Amino acid sequence: MIPPLSDLPREFAFIKRHFLALAGPAALELSDDAAVYTPPAGRDLVVAADAMVENVHFLPSDPPETVGRKLLRCNLSDLAAMGAKPEGWLLTLACPKTIADSWFTAFCNGLKQDQLLFNVHLMGGDTTSTRGPLVLSLTILGSVVPGQAVKRRGAREGDSLWVTGTIGDGALGLRVLQGKLTDSSGHLANRYRLPQPRVGLPLHGLASAAMDISDGLLQDVGHLARENNVGAVIWGPQVPLSKAAQHCGPQWLETCLTGGDDYEILFSVPPQYDAKLSQNPVLPTVLGPVAVHKIGVLTAPEKGIQTLGANGEPLIFKQSGWSHF
Amino acid sequence: MIPPLSDLPREFAFIKRHFLALAGPAALELSDDAAVYTPPAGRDLVVAADAMVENVHFLPSDPPETVGRKLLRCNLSDLAAMGAKPEGWLLTLACPKTIADSWFTAFCNGLKQDQLLFNVHLMGGDTTSTRGPLVLSLTILGSVVPGQAVKRRGAREGDSLWVTGTIGDGALGLRVLQGKLTDSSGHLANRYRLPQPRVGLPLHGLASAAMDISDGLLQDVGHLARENNVGAVIWGPQVPLSKAAQHCGPQWLETCLTGGDDYEILFSVPPQYDAKLSQNPVLPTVLGPVAVHKIGVLTAPEKGIQTLGANGEPLIFKQSGWSHF
Repeated sequence: MIPPLSDLPREFAFIKRHFLALAGPAALELSDDAAVYTPPAGRDLVVAADAMVENVHFLPSDPPETVGRKLLRCNLSDLAAMGAKPEGWLLTLACPKTIADSWFTAFCNGLKQDQLLFNVHLMGGDTTSTRGPLVLSLTILGSVVPGQAVKRRGAREGDSLWVTGTIGDGALGLRVLQGKLTDSSGHLANRYRLPQPRVGLPLHGLASAAMDISDGLLQDVGHLARENNVGAVIWGPQVPLSKAAQHCGPQWLETCLTGGDDYEILFSVPPQYDAKLSQNPVLPTVLGPVAVHKIGVLTAPEKGIQTLGANGEPLIFKQSGWSHF
Repeated sequence: MIPPLSDLPREFAFIKRHFLALAGPAALELSDDAAVYTPPAGRDLVVAADAMVENVHFLPSDPPETVGRKLLRCNLSDLAAMGAKPEGWLLTLACPKTIADSWFTAFCNGLKQDQLLFNVHLMGGDTTSTRGPLVLSLTILGSVVPGQAVKRRGAREGDSLWVTGTIGDGALGLRVLQGKLTDSSGHLANRYRLPQPRVGLPLHGLASAAMDISDGLLQDVGHLARENNVGAVIWGPQVPLSKAAQHCGPQWLETCLTGGDDYEILFSVPPQYDAKLSQNPVLPTVLGPVAVHKIGVLTAPEKGIQTLGANGEPLIFKQSGWSHF
């Protein structure tokens, strides 16, 4: 007699119970050794992988619905930064035995919502046990017209620096969840738990270089500058902050600029496109239009990375990681 | 001043120091948000992901050179089981702070050897910290002529069952490393640490179904049978054992048949191809020819999974996981 699902080895039953509903056609019902996927003809693939660890990237108290969505969205943000369209994703889990089955039900329900939002399906993966914290690793596949991927390299001195959305909400949201800060609006914690990947942002033909902001705006401007052998000036007061972030007060500006967990897009715009974007600083994404803000300009490399205040005075931060510039 | 490598944030310096030498052209020097990869024209992609956890899939005492190679080879084995050609791989690491930098030097040196052997390059990945054990997650991309991927489904009653190489060495090797068994040849521990993925095995046009053997031969025959709604008879004495495995004695047969960690290929062959393969039971792989052995036959589903001894008597194992058949 062929055993019913309930008699399957635990791992297989677990996969079928929770993940089969997420699987797209490439996944072969998650019952094969690998996914088989026909890439879109005439396009390049864009591939990224990110891992998240319990207590490092998410909190045990976070709603399970948002944990998987955050991981998927971080990867979608990597694709968005390259101007790529999502195609599919794979997930590996190293699970401690202490996590209840219902946690994974909610985890997958959250992922199901995001699959609909971003039109993407699970292709495959692996589950294993661990005596340590939950570790999730997600690989995302996207596609792009050959030659149209926007990279970190390509920016030049004189290009302006832009960001999507608002900066610092995720970092402040973590402090709210840690009890270090209050935010009655709930906006900040929500942004920490559910970043808004700017999938579909039309970077090709506009941006000379782009990257997603995950390590903190100042650090990531540093990465972009280093990759292009330029310096940068960031105009502190021009960095867009949400109302909830502004409400926290100026003592939290450093956290906003250096805290990370933004998953917004940092991009450089050559002078010939700058005026047009400045006139109408809104760009479309698959989740709707997003405001973009000019926050600075790329300079000669010997200038390093400078953040300036309202009166042009340099702002020095303890934790920027780039004070040696 | 642009900082030299040594001033980079720790994670970036770590990635450049250890992984840049493994990166292929798609990896964009590991300095972008994602890899950009032109898939081979007119081929389907085959994608698999596997995770390995310290103390679950490898031992802290294992030589670091073999740990990464084992993970890569397990994934290569997934591709081999589908008849796919390796194209590239991504790696995420969740690293405890206690692992020395030199461990990763050796880890990557091992991977470098396997990249040469299997003609494949690193495309990208992610590193993060953890307070738990080391968790490695690898995603592999391969390619196949459309329609030629060999799947777990496709086998029929009457097809013969075959395996590559020898069965049980990995499971016995683990017991050797745990001090439960001795093997002066070193063969068994070596097979545990370095599986031999049968990349290039010409399954298309020969096998009706295939999968890699990782959970134990009997369990995996059960999976293959279940996916095809058939039963199976396995002829115990026909299961190929290495000299080192035979030397352990018959009391270790159960471990060989149910222990896992084989990373050989289990495949079914329709009657019309069986005679020819039986005449010359050797198949080519990229690492040279490999002997294949007929170990049984697929039966009507109501027969379940039976393992028979030398005189046709049923062999009953405690740990087969399939005694309810």
